[in-house]
Amino acid sequence: MSLLVVGSVAFDGLETPFGKVDRTLGGAATYFSVAASFFTHVNLVGVVGDDFSKADEAIFRGRRIDISGLERATGKTFFWAGRYGLDPNDRVTLTTELNVFATFRPKLPAAFCDSKHIFLANIDPTLQHSVLQQMKKRPRLVGLDTMNYWIEGNPAELREILAKTDVLMINDAETRLLSNEHNLLRAARHIFKLGPRTLIIKRGEHGATMVDSKGVFCVPGFPLEEVHDPTGAGDSFAGGFMGYLAGARSLSDAVLRRAMVYGSVMGSFAVERFGLERVRHLKRREIDARARHFAKLTQFRL
Amino acid sequence: MSLLVVGSVAFDGLETPFGKVDRTLGGAATYFSVAASFFTHVNLVGVVGDDFSKADEAIFRGRRIDISGLERATGKTFFWAGRYGLDPNDRVTLTTELNVFATFRPKLPAAFCDSKHIFLANIDPTLQHSVLQQMKKRPRLVGLDTMNYWIEGNPAELREILAKTDVLMINDAETRLLSNEHNLLRAARHIFKLGPRTLIIKRGEHGATMVDSKGVFCVPGFPLEEVHDPTGAGDSFAGGFMGYLAGARSLSDAVLRRAMVYGSVMGSFAVERFGLERVRHLKRREIDARARHFAKLTQFRL
Repeated sequence: MSLLVVGSVAFDGLETPFGKVDRTLGGAATYFSVAASFFTHVNLVGVVGDDFSKADEAIFRGRRIDISGLERATGKTFFWAGRYGLDPNDRVTLTTELNVFATFRPKLPAAFCDSKHIFLANIDPTLQHSVLQQMKKRPRLVGLDTMNYWIEGNPAELREILAKTDVLMINDAETRLLSNEHNLLRAARHIFKLGPRTLIIKRGEHGATMVDSKGVFCVPGFPLEEVHDPTGAGDSFAGGFMGYLAGARSLSDAVLRRAMVYGSVMGSFAVERFGLERVRHLKRREIDARARHFAKLTQFRL
Repeated sequence: MSLLVVGSVAFDGLETPFGKVDRTLGGAATYFSVAASFFTHVNLVGVVGDDFSKADEAIFRGRRIDISGLERATGKTFFWAGRYGLDPNDRVTLTTELNVFATFRPKLPAAFCDSKHIFLANIDPTLQHSVLQQMKKRPRLVGLDTMNYWIEGNPAELREILAKTDVLMINDAETRLLSNEHNLLRAARHIFKLGPRTLIIKRGEHGATMVDSKGVFCVPGFPLEEVHDPTGAGDSFAGGFMGYLAGARSLSDAVLRRAMVYGSVMGSFAVERFGLERVRHLKRREIDARARHFAKLTQFRL
C-alpha cells in the first residue's frame, strides 16, 4: 500500500573520525524513501534547488520512489554541515543553509492525496499539519518525527499535529522534553494523552524502544565495529519501519515488532558508510540476513 | 555446585530523588550473595566490624549462604555514602570510610577452597589474586569485576588476575578504559587477548551485552517507572548470572544467555527499592515471572 513522505532533501557536509565528505546527498526524506523503497512504493514530497542535478536524482531511479512531488525551486538546495566525535551523540553543527527549504510549502500531487501511510519527517509542525489537510481521507497510519527546536518553539502547532499522529518517533531527550518527565514509561503515558498510540524512542547505539498499550518492545543497537557516519540513521529507521508496515496486512503487535526490527536493520546499514553509500547498494537478501542476525542478538529460551 | 564470592560487606548512606536512608546494609558481596542464593549455595568471604549486629546478619539467614568466611574485625564496617540524580549515572560519592576493609586480606575457610565457581567482586586485584592462590584447583568458572581505580592504579596486578578470569563483568566506560578502544566490539577483542573468554558489558538502564567467540547477545534494561536506588544493580546482576551458571549442567551458549537474563532480572529488582529491601522479600516465582517478562520485551518472529 502507498507510503507518502514529506521532508528535507539536502546536501550534507560531513566530518567523522573515519573521514570527511564536502557535499553528499542527504536529507530526511531521501534517507527515508530509499530505505522504505526496499519494502513498498514511496511517494516523496520535498524541494530542491537548481543545483540539484540529474546525477543527484539518480539515487531515486530504479527504485519504487515517485518523485513527481519533488519541487524544483530557484536557488540552492538545503545544505547542512556537521562534525561527529567518536561518540555519535557528540555532534557539532558547522553550517545550516536553509536556501530553498526556507520557503518550502508542501504541495501534494493529486495522486498522493489518498496515500494510506504518511511519514512527516522533522519539519515545522505547521507544514506537517498542512500535509494532513491535503489528504482526501484519514490515512491508515501517520508517523511523525520532530525535535527540540519545534517542541520548544512551536508547541501549539505541534500539539495539533500530535493529536492526529499514530506513531511518534523521537529520541530519549526529545521524549523527556516533550513530556516533561524523566522516566520514559511515564513520559510515554503522557505522550499517549497527546494523541499518538505508539511511541518509538530512538536511542542510537542503544537501539530503539517501542511503547504502546500492549507493553514495551526493545531492539538493541546492531553491534558494528565502525560507525562511519551516523547521519540519517533515524530517518532510515523510520523508512524501514513505515515501509514494512505499509506492506503488511495488519498492524498487529507481531507486525509492529517486525517493523521495529526492519527499521533497526535499515538504521544499522545507514551508519556503516558515509551518506547513502551503503544503503544505495544494498540487496534485499542482505536486509533479511541482518534481520536474522538481530534475532540471534536477542533471542533466548527460558 | 558451589559458588564463592569475595568482596565488600558494607553500610551505605543513600540519597536519591525518591528518598534518603542514613545507613543500610550493602556492599558488593552482600548484594551478590543474596541474589545468587535464589539459584545456588553461596560461600561468602568478606570482613565486617564490631558494629555489625545480629540484626544485620539476618539478611543472610534462611538463605543458602555460608558466612563462615565473614571475618569479624575490631573497628567499624566499611561505610559508603552517595547521592544519585534522576539519571542514575549522575552519582556523587559523599563519604568513603574503608574502616576494617582497609586491612582486609581474604582468608578462605578450608571448605571453600574447592569452590567450583568464584566471583571476585570489585576489590584490589592483588587481593583478588590472593583468593585464586588459595584454591586447591582451577575452578570451573572465574568471574571478575573491577573499576577505573584499579585499571589505572594497579594495571600490572590486574593483568595477572585477568589472565585467570573467564568472565569479566564491567561497564562501558571501564571497557573502553581497559582496552583503550572506544568501539565495544574491538574493545572486547582486545580484552579476550588479556584472558577472559567472555565479556559482559553492564550498561545500566540500557541493559547488558555479552560478547564471546559465539557472537553478541543483548538484554535490554527492564523498563521501570521508578528507579529508587541504583546501588547494587551490577552486583545483583552478577549474583543472578553466576548463581544461574553454578546451578547449570553446561556452560553452553543457551545457558549463558539464560544466565544473562536471570542476571538482568536480579539487577532490575535490586533498583526498585532502597538497599536490599526488594530483593530480600523476593519469591522465586517473581523471578521466573520477570524472566518471562524479559522474553516478552525482546522476542519477535520474522
